[in-house]
Formats: sequence, C-alpha cells, structure tokens
Amino acid sequence: MRVAVVQTCPIFGEVKKNVALALSLMESAAADLYVLPELFNTGYNFNEEAELKTLAETAESSTFRMMHAWSKNHACYIVYGFAERADKIYNSAALIGPEGVRGLYRKVHLFDRENLFFAPGNLGFPVFELPFGTIGLMICFDWIYPESARSLALKGAQLVAHPSNLVLPHCPDSMVTRCLENRIYTATADRVGEENRGGRNLKFIGSSEIVAPNGEILCKLGASDPAISVVELDLALAKNKQINNYNHVIDGRRPDQYHA
Amino acid sequence: MRVAVVQTCPIFGEVKKNVALALSLMESAAADLYVLPELFNTGYNFNEEAELKTLAETAESSTFRMMHAWSKNHACYIVYGFAERADKIYNSAALIGPEGVRGLYRKVHLFDRENLFFAPGNLGFPVFELPFGTIGLMICFDWIYPESARSLALKGAQLVAHPSNLVLPHCPDSMVTRCLENRIYTATADRVGEENRGGRNLKFIGSSEIVAPNGEILCKLGASDPAISVVELDLALAKNKQINNYNHVIDGRRPDQYHA
Repeated sequence: MRVAVVQTCPIFGEVKKNVALALSLMESAAADLYVLPELFNTGYNFNEEAELKTLAETAESSTFRMMHAWSKNHACYIVYGFAERADKIYNSAALIGPEGVRGLYRKVHLFDRENLFFAPGNLGFPVFELPFGTIGLMICFDWIYPESARSLALKGAQLVAHPSNLVLPHCPDSMVTRCLENRIYTATADRVGEENRGGRNLKFIGSSEIVAPNGEILCKLGASDPAISVVELDLALAKNKQINNYNHVIDGRRPDQYHA
Repeated sequence: MRVAVVQTCPIFGEVKKNVALALSLMESAAADLYVLPELFNTGYNFNEEAELKTLAETAESSTFRMMHAWSKNHACYIVYGFAERADKIYNSAALIGPEGVRGLYRKVHLFDRENLFFAPGNLGFPVFELPFGTIGLMICFDWIYPESARSLALKGAQLVAHPSNLVLPHCPDSMVTRCLENRIYTATADRVGEENRGGRNLKFIGSSEIVAPNGEILCKLGASDPAISVVELDLALAKNKQINNYNHVIDGRRPDQYHA
C-alpha cells in the first residue's frame, strides 16, 4: 500500500483555504492512505475557548464533507486532525474513506495550553481494519508516552497514522524508537509555518516522516515548506515481531518484572 | 555528582586483564560513580553453557574483591556487568561501594543467544539510594523495552546506569528518547572491539553515552577505542518531571486509556 504524509501550512481560522491547500497537495500524488496534520483545517494557536468553539466541527460537518467527497473520487482513505464538537470539544483525528467516517480518535495526552480548551480523549487508542491492513491513530504529543504506540501495537496496528503540530524538536528522532520497540510503521504528518497570536509565537518544525519497523527513515520532509511524500509500504513486515531467533519484541515483554 | 562511563575492550576469558584495563582507565578520571560495560570481566561471545559456567562468579568473588578494594580506596561507587553464579547463571550488574555490594540486577530481557545460557532476570528493575541520588540499573537490550526505563523512573531513579555490549546500531539514539519520556539521566557504558569465536564474529559499537533529562547528549565516546568520560550531573533536575505548566511527564500518564 502507498501512504502519503501531507505537510501543510494552515492559516489560522481559514478552514476552506486550509482544506483546499491540503487537497491540492493530495491531487499531486496518488496514495491509498493520506495522513494530514493535527487541526489541519483550523490552525492551532487558539486564544480562548470561545474561539475554539466557533471553529470546532462535528465529525460529519463541512470539513468532513469535503474530505469525504475527495476520498470517494479517489478511492482512498484519509486521516486528518480537527477540533471535534461533541459532548465536549476534543482534539481529534478522523479516519475517513469512501464509505464515510471509519473511525475517530480523541487525543489522550493534551499538550501545554491545549489543556485549557480541549477535553482529554476518552476513546483509548483505537485501531481500524482497512483493506490494506490495520491502522492505529495517535496525535502529536502522544509520541512522548511510549504507552501510546505500545497500546496501538498490542491491538495489532501495523501502521500508526500520527497527525501532528510539532513545536519541540525531538519527535522525529523518537519516532524511530517507537517503530523499533514495536516493529511497526509510523507516518507522522506535521505542519510548517508560524502562528503569532495573543503574544505567543509558535513555530512548527515540519519534518514529516515515515519510518519502517526496522527504524529506517523512509522519507522526511523539510522544515519550512508545504510538501507531500508517498512511500510504498509492505505492511506484512509489521506483523513479524521477531528481531532474531530468540527475541520477539512483543512476546518478550515481562510484565511480572515491571513496575507500573 | 560526577558519573563516568568506562568504555573497555575485554579480551574473552581474560578476567584479570580485563579488570586491570578497566581500573587503569578509572585511575585516569575521578568520579563518584563509574559505570562499566556488561560482562566487562569475561567477554561476551560464549560458545556454550559449560564455558559460561567456568567464567561465572558469585557476587562476592574475585572480580568483586578487586573492584571493592578500588572503590574503598577511591571512595566511589561502581556498576559493572558480570556473569553471576547463583541458583542459576544470570547476566547481572553489581552496584558496589566502599561498604560492599549495594545492589544486584539480573538482566530481564536477554538478547539473542544469551537465551541459551543465562536464566532470565528475576529481581525486577531495582533502584538504590546512594549519597548523591537514586540510581537504577538496566543492561543493554533492556533499552528496547520502554517498560525497563519506565519502571526505574516510576521507582524514583534519577540516573539509570546501563552496562551494555551493543552490536545493533540503534541504542545510542534511543537513549535520548528514554531520557525524554522519563525525564531521567542515563549513562550507557558500552564496549568496543570484536569477538570472533565459534564462527560468530561480533563487532561492538562503543558510542558510550551520557544523556540528560532534556535529551541533551552530554558525552558520547568513539566506536573503536577504550576510553572514559566523566560528566558532572545535577541529579535534582531528574526530579522535575514538569515539561511545561500543564504537562508532568509521569502524572500525565493515562493508564485507563492504554491497552496492556
């Protein structure tokens, strides 16, 4: 299967323009699964909860409709991050396909000021069976908790789709560790650009990345520009957890020796 | 406190020479805690269990006596890896000080052919209170299991001493992730050289490393030569688990959302 990381540069609050930018990048490269950044349609640097409430959408409102139409036309799946209006407002990722919404994930580990506006995720770390394999979802700062990717791997994820808005430098290198320790693929779709709002200037680091179960970095985008990269993956490789004749990276865990 | 990583090049089976090499390096640099490689006194590439039985020692036999005498003379602590003869034979690390054996760790995650000869560790991941802070122990391949360093951090380890015999390339970079995700210091003492025995040629990668809770690599030794490096650490930094005003890297875990 072919997975694409779509690295965009959202303009805060300009939902239609942001969706259009993403779709124009996606038009340029055929893939079976496209992974877009966290909050790709709204931007990130909210001043207050009221502003977020204005921009949040239900899982089936306008952004969904545009992405769903495109996925039907192109017979593909798309993962994108958005502010989800539900019983509360969540920092969510949707997995959609020609058949509609296939799955939702609500960010479990909120970062920094997100804690002021978003409710913490309450759906665990979900995996979904797609025609080409089992896909897990996590968002951005979830990377720093090894429990996130571990949970997804234990549930059978072969590829983790990882919408992100990275401001700290360490995630791209750490995704190599996440792949090695779980023998999974990861596709981290980050954004670029800056958001200078309310006296807070955030600079996003781009560096969107696809990494293999053996830790090989299959593609890494730049730090400054919108871009897309497609890599052909053999997801069957992520089912083989054997490092050598004696070490199975999952079965070799020894919970009786751990402290939790 | 000052921690030293002692990168040696053991000669297989030459215990006295190997201990002497380590002590000569240690003489060259003052430290409060010296960390030596896994199996630093015997070498690594055992052909069969009988060979290991010949070289294994109890926790208080000749290697211990030499190291203990040195630690008394220099008023310091030492962590070293050795083949421990007990009810079974373990791939162990001893923490010794002027007062004697302070602690033992038995490798929980055995690598590759070690599984043929050694019994899996049965002491969990232990931490020890020393005058300068709380020290945890793990050995080599334990690095690939995030549960290892996590267990030690949850038990209060500020610095993880990590005797190693690395043959795969990914550990040094992954130790940065281990430090970031737990906000701890790590000191990985690896060996260099090759062991060509029984048709198996193993090449060890050196690259011994000390990493800070913020992911900074404080020292990294070369890939080929015996060497020692001492770094002054402020272990109090490893007690602060706050990444920003809203994120505490330990308290922010959400076990109810994880799959185990």
